[in-house]
Amino acid sequence: MNLPSFPHVDMFSAGINALYGVLLARQPSHNRGYTVAGLLIMAFFGGIGGGVSRDVLLGEIPAPIQDPMYPLVCVLMGLLGLAICRYHESKEEEFRTRTLAYFKSFSLPWFAILGAHKALDHNLGICAAILIGLIATTAGGVFIDLFSGVTPEVVRPSEQLVTTAVLASTVYTVLAVVVQGRLSFFQVTLIAVLVAFLFRVLAVKKHWPSIVPLVAPAAGPGVRA
Amino acid sequence: MNLPSFPHVDMFSAGINALYGVLLARQPSHNRGYTVAGLLIMAFFGGIGGGVSRDVLLGEIPAPIQDPMYPLVCVLMGLLGLAICRYHESKEEEFRTRTLAYFKSFSLPWFAILGAHKALDHNLGICAAILIGLIATTAGGVFIDLFSGVTPEVVRPSEQLVTTAVLASTVYTVLAVVVQGRLSFFQVTLIAVLVAFLFRVLAVKKHWPSIVPLVAPAAGPGVRA
Amino acid sequence: MNLPSFPHVDMFSAGINALYGVLLARQPSHNRGYTVAGLLIMAFFGGIGGGVSRDVLLGEIPAPIQDPMYPLVCVLMGLLGLAICRYHESKEEEFRTRTLAYFKSFSLPWFAILGAHKALDHNLGICAAILIGLIATTAGGVFIDLFSGVTPEVVRPSEQLVTTAVLASTVYTVLAVVVQGRLSFFQVTLIAVLVAFLFRVLAVKKHWPSIVPLVAPAAGPGVRA
Repeated sequence: MNLPSFPHVDMFSAGINALYGVLLARQPSHNRGYTVAGLLIMAFFGGIGGGVSRDVLLGEIPAPIQDPMYPLVCVLMGLLGLAICRYHESKEEEFRTRTLAYFKSFSLPWFAILGAHKALDHNLGICAAILIGLIATTAGGVFIDLFSGVTPEVVRPSEQLVTTAVLASTVYTVLAVVVQGRLSFFQVTLIAVLVAFLFRVLAVKKHWPSIVPLVAPAAGPGVRA
Repeated sequence: MNLPSFPHVDMFSAGINALYGVLLARQPSHNRGYTVAGLLIMAFFGGIGGGVSRDVLLGEIPAPIQDPMYPLVCVLMGLLGLAICRYHESKEEEFRTRTLAYFKSFSLPWFAILGAHKALDHNLGICAAILIGLIATTAGGVFIDLFSGVTPEVVRPSEQLVTTAVLASTVYTVLAVVVQGRLSFFQVTLIAVLVAFLFRVLAVKKHWPSIVPLVAPAAGPGVRA
Repeated sequence: MNLPSFPHVDMFSAGINALYGVLLARQPSHNRGYTVAGLLIMAFFGGIGGGVSRDVLLGEIPAPIQDPMYPLVCVLMGLLGLAICRYHESKEEEFRTRTLAYFKSFSLPWFAILGAHKALDHNLGICAAILIGLIATTAGGVFIDLFSGVTPEVVRPSEQLVTTAVLASTVYTVLAVVVQGRLSFFQVTLIAVLVAFLFRVLAVKKHWPSIVPLVAPAAGPGVRA
């Protein structure tokens, strides 16, 4: 399949996910006394972690490494995140967690779509497109969670994070394959983002439960010490 | 070297390792309140984590991403794992740990052999074949352990996990290089699996000790808190 | 840009970083009851973790996998590290931490320079060269820290680890681009190593502070248990 590239969507996606990365890393659940340099690295994980993972799996030199605009956008959004944190530290935690969940709902479909798009572009088929979409969406957060010593959100109850990523990839993939040519790719992207965003906002608002077969604390080795 | 590919062995290996991934993730030592989606992701780690790591290092688009059969097999074996867990939760922990160790003994040589095979196929030599075999064998388990906040088994005393992986890779590599042509690759594979399986079963049964230069609890940052 | 390769510097860098990996993994802060095989794996992480990460990002089959000399050097330096540990276990911890910090100052610029060099060699530009230099320098330590369940040093206050890596990459990149041809690459390398080494030694000696916007214990999930 020969799909057009849309670098602006890619950059936009990197920017909002870099911002989310810093905000997440500054949460009490994740903060481990990070330095400013460390928080900018977290912005990189959020902003280009997904794209780099995707491109490595597809056997390409990662786009965020080839184009110096990506690191620049990540650093700027990282600094913006630090500024936001300075002004909102006073807000109660419940409020911030909630705001962050909604912000995450908006930022997460983009990487899913870009991942699915790139996989289709490599003629890897629908199944690989959804898989790469899921990996691209969650890889950045996995890096941040592992660095913070927290069980990655993707395997824990997390208000339909996995479902939303799979939904965004699937809607994009199916529309891209079915309506090929009748809708512009920007339209297909917007539809997929909208569907996934609304699904996730509802999941956060209504507290849709995840299916957990055996409840255990999301704790690490500390409990075994 | 021009070696035939054997996709069925690859698929078989992915299947039993995906099953092992779910069973391991449901152990009390590893369970962190995983969702069903999270446990299926653990099945993916077990089933294709090793193969993906191997192919990324060899500069290929990972086979498990190109072929939709792999994700399908992982999901099915993951669901089988969930069903087995439901019926065996009542068994005492000692029994399950033991059964799991034997099952692991059977599942681990396959990835070692496939890794060594692929590295030989890329003309990387004996040393690289053993190294890639070791990485392919252990990468999936490392992902599961890190996600669970547990010190990865590969660096801890673990009943000769590393030795077995190196043994399987070495036997396969040496036989493939030495007897080239006289034995079919299926025969060479069976011999390598058998040697490694017997070695590991003996190690589990006889509690062969690992050499630990300085004993410390296999605990994480909790002890420093 | 067509740069000469310098395999001996690469091997030297792998060797001293493998040694550092074992010494770090044996520190009380990192030791989790590692086996000898596990400690040799830590030597591999230190010695070839950075180079493998760099080459995977650049889309190459990692040099340390293609050339059997790298694993050999890592194993030998790992064994040397084990021998050193045996004789120095008696030393008080403060002394060892200090010695290790100076040793790290010497070992870290090399991977930064090799990373920047390879990125320039791929015509990826100055920005990518610095980024790859930073990743190559820190990836090995990140693996060791994550395996040990410790918040990676690169995001924590760590006596200007990130600054030093960026400095080494930047000095090398700028000199390589500006004085192209007038200085030999060995001279450029020595200048970059010297600048970064002196900077880091001063940072360790004078306890130059990192900028930490919000102090929190560098602890993992234990505190949440």
